[in-house]
Amino acid sequence: MYGAGDVRVEEVPDPQLREPTDAVVRIVRSCVCGSDLHPYHSMKRRDRGAPMGHEFLGVVEELGSEVSGVRRGDLVVAPFVWSDNSCVFCREGLHTSCRRGGVFGGGQAEAIRVPQADGTLVRLPVAEDSALLPSLLTLADVYGTGHHAARLGRVGPGTTVTVIGDGAVGLLAVLSAQRMGAERIILMGRHTSRTDLGREFGATDVVAERGEEGVERVRELTGGDGTHAVLEAVGHMPAYETAVGVVRPGGVISRVGVPQYESAPVGFGSLFGGNVTLTGGPAPVRAYIDELLPDVLEGRVEPGRVFDRTVGLDETPEGYRAMDRREALKVLIAP
Amino acid sequence: MYGAGDVRVEEVPDPQLREPTDAVVRIVRSCVCGSDLHPYHSMKRRDRGAPMGHEFLGVVEELGSEVSGVRRGDLVVAPFVWSDNSCVFCREGLHTSCRRGGVFGGGQAEAIRVPQADGTLVRLPVAEDSALLPSLLTLADVYGTGHHAARLGRVGPGTTVTVIGDGAVGLLAVLSAQRMGAERIILMGRHTSRTDLGREFGATDVVAERGEEGVERVRELTGGDGTHAVLEAVGHMPAYETAVGVVRPGGVISRVGVPQYESAPVGFGSLFGGNVTLTGGPAPVRAYIDELLPDVLEGRVEPGRVFDRTVGLDETPEGYRAMDRREALKVLIAP
Repeated sequence: MYGAGDVRVEEVPDPQLREPTDAVVRIVRSCVCGSDLHPYHSMKRRDRGAPMGHEFLGVVEELGSEVSGVRRGDLVVAPFVWSDNSCVFCREGLHTSCRRGGVFGGGQAEAIRVPQADGTLVRLPVAEDSALLPSLLTLADVYGTGHHAARLGRVGPGTTVTVIGDGAVGLLAVLSAQRMGAERIILMGRHTSRTDLGREFGATDVVAERGEEGVERVRELTGGDGTHAVLEAVGHMPAYETAVGVVRPGGVISRVGVPQYESAPVGFGSLFGGNVTLTGGPAPVRAYIDELLPDVLEGRVEPGRVFDRTVGLDETPEGYRAMDRREALKVLIAP
Repeated sequence: MYGAGDVRVEEVPDPQLREPTDAVVRIVRSCVCGSDLHPYHSMKRRDRGAPMGHEFLGVVEELGSEVSGVRRGDLVVAPFVWSDNSCVFCREGLHTSCRRGGVFGGGQAEAIRVPQADGTLVRLPVAEDSALLPSLLTLADVYGTGHHAARLGRVGPGTTVTVIGDGAVGLLAVLSAQRMGAERIILMGRHTSRTDLGREFGATDVVAERGEEGVERVRELTGGDGTHAVLEAVGHMPAYETAVGVVRPGGVISRVGVPQYESAPVGFGSLFGGNVTLTGGPAPVRAYIDELLPDVLEGRVEPGRVFDRTVGLDETPEGYRAMDRREALKVLIAP
């Protein structure tokens, strides 16, 4: 990406091993993330392009001398953050704060260097042409991020939940809340094709209204109280304000949309008076893959249904455009 | 209180029962709260004074026809919020959001009307001249509030904790963190007499520096990472900024100082990037009295040590002045 709206496909040198803990992975599937749209809207023009893409699965091609957990030829998925899976933060399940971690760039490509390969890569027991690839790819980010939202939102049996946003993460937050036993899941979104999928994922109610009107609708649906958990999967200020408007006293606002603001209301009238908790952040998806993988492999959940368009690597710029125009929910890239 | 700095002692009509669920309590001990200092600094002048005081213990004098849980002559303590102790929020332990609740005013007085007496009043098994009265009075607010901070901060064995503020609530947050088994408790405060009491309550380290320098000190003490829990017992923006500066990735900022600001930094660089949770609010102290009372009765904790001055009711304005000038930590009123 060279600037807002300017995504190009270029020939670059092949990735090489640099550290003995590295691997090189040939990418089999990658995709465009909702968070890629933020720089797509606002990135300043630059002379050197930024390599894009942090979600991928692929086949291990080369291994550094210290890598022992995966082998050449293994099909693997990588979380969007690499991590050693052994530091104090990783042991606490906070791989996004790993002392040796970092965020991938350049996953929308033919191959990629993976630092901390042993801590990062998870072997997938399927073939390279498995029909499960789209769902398995969501373990790299969006499914784990939806799970993170629901988990930090303390969703469980008896919980009422509002999900703000009908993008891929919002829909997978619905699926995650349903999987954790939520009693009621209100999905706020305006795109019928998306909210229809949300209903299939477990949404019990859909609220298409936004702003004050949307808040009013959720309050009506909940006897005036709001919901125990609000999973905010957008990242813009109006979504935050809606979250504050629909959360129940004592409830939790769990944010996984990357905030496009720095300051927000947190005082007596917004969070404090009602003992509302604000939580969330980049999802340590590596911590969740072991838990989420079996349901995907056995077909009990199909998070890959969020992909509604597939492009080749050369068509990646068109994939960005389609997502930006809401013509596509989430674009799969098959290099 | 008629305005900032203007506290008067006046004769007013005796409180009367209004509802069958009311009681009238003759006040034996009350006190001045740190939160009373906020209007003491900023309240606009008004013609009718606002009755002050929300912490009291006393003797039941009159009972409405529907009150059955306490009797005339019982010594009782009241949480600073009255509540029915039976609505859906009370059953969840969130008495501050009780459907029939409200905040007391007029506890700095000889007597007070107590709505929802059955839900609100807790009988104290001691005599009216017990030496335990100061500690028992802290159950009305400050001890329960310190406990709330530590509880929402998920303090437990192995937890590292920073407490911001050496007022009564901050010191009782230290005591609460210690009682819950915190591994390390760093108290940020500048008043040696107070931080000395904080050490007796369990603080392992004291940081007198403020602002950037204070943040730096706490980071030095924690190998650069900050602490798992930050208990913020002040309510001003610099305290919030310090909290953001000293919290560990994945940690919790638990606020019990009433925020004197509405907006604050919550974006990627402050809370989101490190998966930091922001929680807190008015403490539902009624929910905690049953748990906290035994240790007080048996002398295992002495939260009443935060009172370092006692005045008669007529001297209440002087009590405000002393607390405002930091000459007194917390002022007990013996009408």
